[in-house]
Amino acid sequence: METTMTDGPGGYVHGYSGRESRRLGDQADALAALVHDGTAYPAGSRVLEAGCGVGAQTVHLVARSPGVRLTAVDLSRASLEQARARVEASSPAARVRWRCADLRDLPFGDAEFDHVFVCFVLEHLPDPRAVLAGLRRVLRPGGTLTAVEGDHGSAFFHPDSAHARAAIAHQVALQSAAGGDALLGRRLGPLLAEAGYARVGVVPRTVYADRARPDLRRAFTRDTFTAMIESVRGEAVAAGLAAPADFDRGVADLHRAADADGTFHYTFFKATAVNPE
Amino acid sequence: METTMTDGPGGYVHGYSGRESRRLGDQADALAALVHDGTAYPAGSRVLEAGCGVGAQTVHLVARSPGVRLTAVDLSRASLEQARARVEASSPAARVRWRCADLRDLPFGDAEFDHVFVCFVLEHLPDPRAVLAGLRRVLRPGGTLTAVEGDHGSAFFHPDSAHARAAIAHQVALQSAAGGDALLGRRLGPLLAEAGYARVGVVPRTVYADRARPDLRRAFTRDTFTAMIESVRGEAVAAGLAAPADFDRGVADLHRAADADGTFHYTFFKATAVNPE
Repeated sequence: METTMTDGPGGYVHGYSGRESRRLGDQADALAALVHDGTAYPAGSRVLEAGCGVGAQTVHLVARSPGVRLTAVDLSRASLEQARARVEASSPAARVRWRCADLRDLPFGDAEFDHVFVCFVLEHLPDPRAVLAGLRRVLRPGGTLTAVEGDHGSAFFHPDSAHARAAIAHQVALQSAAGGDALLGRRLGPLLAEAGYARVGVVPRTVYADRARPDLRRAFTRDTFTAMIESVRGEAVAAGLAAPADFDRGVADLHRAADADGTFHYTFFKATAVNPE
Repeated sequence: METTMTDGPGGYVHGYSGRESRRLGDQADALAALVHDGTAYPAGSRVLEAGCGVGAQTVHLVARSPGVRLTAVDLSRASLEQARARVEASSPAARVRWRCADLRDLPFGDAEFDHVFVCFVLEHLPDPRAVLAGLRRVLRPGGTLTAVEGDHGSAFFHPDSAHARAAIAHQVALQSAAGGDALLGRRLGPLLAEAGYARVGVVPRTVYADRARPDLRRAFTRDTFTAMIESVRGEAVAAGLAAPADFDRGVADLHRAADADGTFHYTFFKATAVNPE
C-alpha cells in the first residue's frame, strides 16, 4: 500500500498528492513494528531497498540497521527527493545512495547486494515475478530478500457492510486495471519460489483494531486503510464502478468500524527468502 | 466450528456423524496451541466449560490445567458421553462433572464458578449475548471468561476461486438460517461488552498454511476447514443455494489451496474478559 513503480497519470493507483504523502507517513508509523520487527542487517552490509517511494519504510530501515550501506531505488525522482529529505531529517548519519531507476531494469551488477528489502511494491507491478528474479540477480548467493505485502481480501470488520465491501472491491479492481494486484499477499510465497528463491518463509502479521486500541484504529483503520479506499473515489466513480452515494456510504461504514464498538481486521504477509548458493 | 447447543434435525449445521466427530478431533489437535495457549487455571479453581460438545477442547483444557474442578455442559447427551470417554482416556485423573443442560438456562447458582471457558459455541447460538450474560451470572465477581471463535470472512486463499468463495458463503448462509453466525469472531469483543463484562481483550490468532507447513495444511486447510464446508454440500444443494457441480468445484478449489503452491489463511479470535466486582 505504499509506493510505486510508474510515474504519471494512471500509473500509481493511490496518486501522488500531499495528502497521500501524509497518509503514507501515518501508515508507516503505525505499521513500523509490524513491517520491520525481525529485520536488522549487520553494519557494513550492502542493502538494496527496491521501490523506496517517499521513504516511509526507509527511515525505519536505517534506524533499525545503523551502519548499513543502503541503496534506495525508485522510479519517481520526486518521491526520491522526499525520501532523501525524510531520512536526512531522521537519521543524518545514514549512508544512503539514492538511485532513480526502473525495478525491471536495475542499474547494478550481479551479486552487488547482501540483502534486498521490498515493501508494498510488488502489489503495484504488472510482473512481480520478473522483478523478483531481477532482484535475485543483484543479490549475492546466500543473500536474503525480505518482502512485505498486504492483501485486501483479508479486510473484514464489524459492523459488516456490503457497501464497504463493494468500495474495497472497487479499489482492488482499479489496482488490477492499473496492472497491480491488491490481493498479492496470499501469493507472496509462491511468487518467491517461482522466481528461484530458496528457503521461502512467510508469516502473517495481523492488525486487529478495536475500542481497546484507539491509536491503532485511528492510525490504521481510519488514516491508512479507509483513507486509501477513499482516495480512489473519483476514479471509481469516473470508471462507472460506483455511484457517488454508494461509495460514500461504503467509506462511512469503514469509518463506523473505527468507532464505538467497531472492529477491523487486516493481514500483512512478511516473507524472507534466500538466493541459493 | 466445533460444538453445538441444539440437538436434532436442523439444529447443528455440521451434523453429528462419525465423520464429523473425527473432523472435530483433527481440528482440535491442529488448533490446540492456537486455542489454549495462554489459558491455564490454578489447581482447585471451579471452571465451567460451556458447550463441551464431544470434548475436543475439554481434553486440552484438563491437560493444561491439572487439578481444576471442571464442570462440562452440553445439550447433547450423546456428545457428553463421547466427551467423557475421551477425557477418561486421555486424563484419567481429571475431576469432571458432566451436565446435560441448555446454556440458555444453566442449572447453577450465582457466582458458582471462578472461570468460564467457551470455544466454538457462540457462533451456533441465536442469542449469544443472552447466553454470555447468563454465563456471567454463574461467574463470581472478578472471575474470568475466555471465549474463542472463528470468522469465515477471514478465509482467503491462493489460488483464489469464486467457486470456493461461493461454497463458503453457502455454509455461512446455512449457519445463519439455523440461527447461528459463522462471522461471529469480528464481533466477539463487542458482544462481551454488551453482556456486561469488563476488561475485554481480544487477540487475533491467525492460521496461515502453505507448502512450508504440510501438517497444518492437512490438519487445518483440508481436514478441518474444507471438510466443514464439504459437510454442508447436501444441505446447500437441497436448499437450492448451489448446483452440485458448482459446489464440488468450490470444494476442489479449496483442496487446491492445500496443494502444491497453494496458501490458506484463517483468523480465530480469542477473548478474555472479567465479571466486574
